[in-house]
Amino acid sequence: MLINEWFFEDDMPLAVAIKVKGSLYSRKSKYQKIEILDSIAMGKVMLLDNKVMVSEKDEFYYHETITHPALSIHSNPKKIMVIGGGDGGTVREVLKYKTVDEVELVEIDEEVITVSKKYFPEVACELDSPKLKIKLNDAIEYIKSAKENTYDVILCDSTDPEGFAAGLISKEFYKNAGKALKENGIYICQSGSLLIQEKEFKISLENMRTAFKYVDAMVSIVPTYPGCVWSFLIASNSPVDRKIKNMPGGKTKYWNEGIHEKLFAKPEWLKEKYFSLQVAK
Amino acid sequence: MLINEWFFEDDMPLAVAIKVKGSLYSRKSKYQKIEILDSIAMGKVMLLDNKVMVSEKDEFYYHETITHPALSIHSNPKKIMVIGGGDGGTVREVLKYKTVDEVELVEIDEEVITVSKKYFPEVACELDSPKLKIKLNDAIEYIKSAKENTYDVILCDSTDPEGFAAGLISKEFYKNAGKALKENGIYICQSGSLLIQEKEFKISLENMRTAFKYVDAMVSIVPTYPGCVWSFLIASNSPVDRKIKNMPGGKTKYWNEGIHEKLFAKPEWLKEKYFSLQVAK
Repeated sequence: MLINEWFFEDDMPLAVAIKVKGSLYSRKSKYQKIEILDSIAMGKVMLLDNKVMVSEKDEFYYHETITHPALSIHSNPKKIMVIGGGDGGTVREVLKYKTVDEVELVEIDEEVITVSKKYFPEVACELDSPKLKIKLNDAIEYIKSAKENTYDVILCDSTDPEGFAAGLISKEFYKNAGKALKENGIYICQSGSLLIQEKEFKISLENMRTAFKYVDAMVSIVPTYPGCVWSFLIASNSPVDRKIKNMPGGKTKYWNEGIHEKLFAKPEWLKEKYFSLQVAK
Repeated sequence: MLINEWFFEDDMPLAVAIKVKGSLYSRKSKYQKIEILDSIAMGKVMLLDNKVMVSEKDEFYYHETITHPALSIHSNPKKIMVIGGGDGGTVREVLKYKTVDEVELVEIDEEVITVSKKYFPEVACELDSPKLKIKLNDAIEYIKSAKENTYDVILCDSTDPEGFAAGLISKEFYKNAGKALKENGIYICQSGSLLIQEKEFKISLENMRTAFKYVDAMVSIVPTYPGCVWSFLIASNSPVDRKIKNMPGGKTKYWNEGIHEKLFAKPEWLKEKYFSLQVAK
């Protein structure tokens, strides 16, 4: 909803209100409405179907949390799949690892990529990298036919599990992701606000536990997402050793060795409710 | 601002929007406007001068962060001062420590206490404790005349440093707090959003560094405060050893040993900007 120069998502009863100066772009692509707002505190903000995807000022909290915990604990990440993430922020972080020699970006909507390059050059800065292969596909179909035992890390940087993205939290999807990963491969995804999307978090967690042997949650902050206490799930079929084995080559703004361990610390209520028993199958 | 059933603070360019069912109470006290909204996602919400002070659903993030890091690392916290905090949430957490035998609550506005007891019984549940002494005073004056070398922990659970609370981040105030503390005493306060109140955070930090030998920052989450990445400052004239020495007697919802360490981990940008040098004078 845009009212009196304030934008906020109005489909849930808690939201982040952002004061805007105007709209820079607004167009319906084949899949969704893409809009760019110019805001006072957060710089440019991209909305997909009226939901904040990325803001210039705080995007690094999200992109660094979805990338570094998984890439840094993998012993030798070379081949990576990024699902969604057409803005390029996750690809930018992934390519900070010198070991990485190929990233597949599976984005359904080409216009997200085009618009990001134009309005968010600092986020989209690696979208022309020779190491990047852009696959304009529905990730649900793509992962079904992906070659088994192929990827070191799969990062699901998707919109909320609604509409065309609903299947991204199904048991079948996670099973296919598990097959596409190498034996010591790691899957990581954003799993919503712990304040107002606990239902979706629970479904993701339970489905993931049927598909992977090891599942853990991280708690981070995404200031412009509603309910800002943001969860991420990390899974593997090999035991997940959280020790950092690989440092990113480039600078980070949020993540560091101190933050790394702390992302896995859980509020007492979350620990008691979902992580009181050993999660291995 | 209350518009189309949504409330959000509109004095800064980023806010939390809360969908409300109605207003349960609204009255101007001698010091400020006190209002209680009934919201869909966050339960009852108390506003002071149109700023969110406390919401039923997320108050524990704030109250546990301002209390447990300081009380748990003190070897023997007995005499405590709470500044502001008329809702009672901080007092509730402080009284979970069996060592504590006296808490002074220095709240300027008696009506905050009265309204909290009526609308937030679970937050205000210790406001009639025999261990509690309520001092209806301006904390800035109170601490000036406080007996030296008296308190084990002082917790400043105040509103933003504006209006009658502006003096709570001055050098003089911190110096007086330092004098009122015992030699190994600990001072802790909320210090605003790192996203949109960095200026205030910087002033607090710099002033505190002139008054205390050791100053450190913690980063926590307050989902209903604007810019939700919330800072707290902790200071002492003795070296601050973060090791937990004392566990609260009662249950917590957020804080635990894992979260304790997490609170002291700093985003890379914050570390580089304000904590790259040893902070001791």
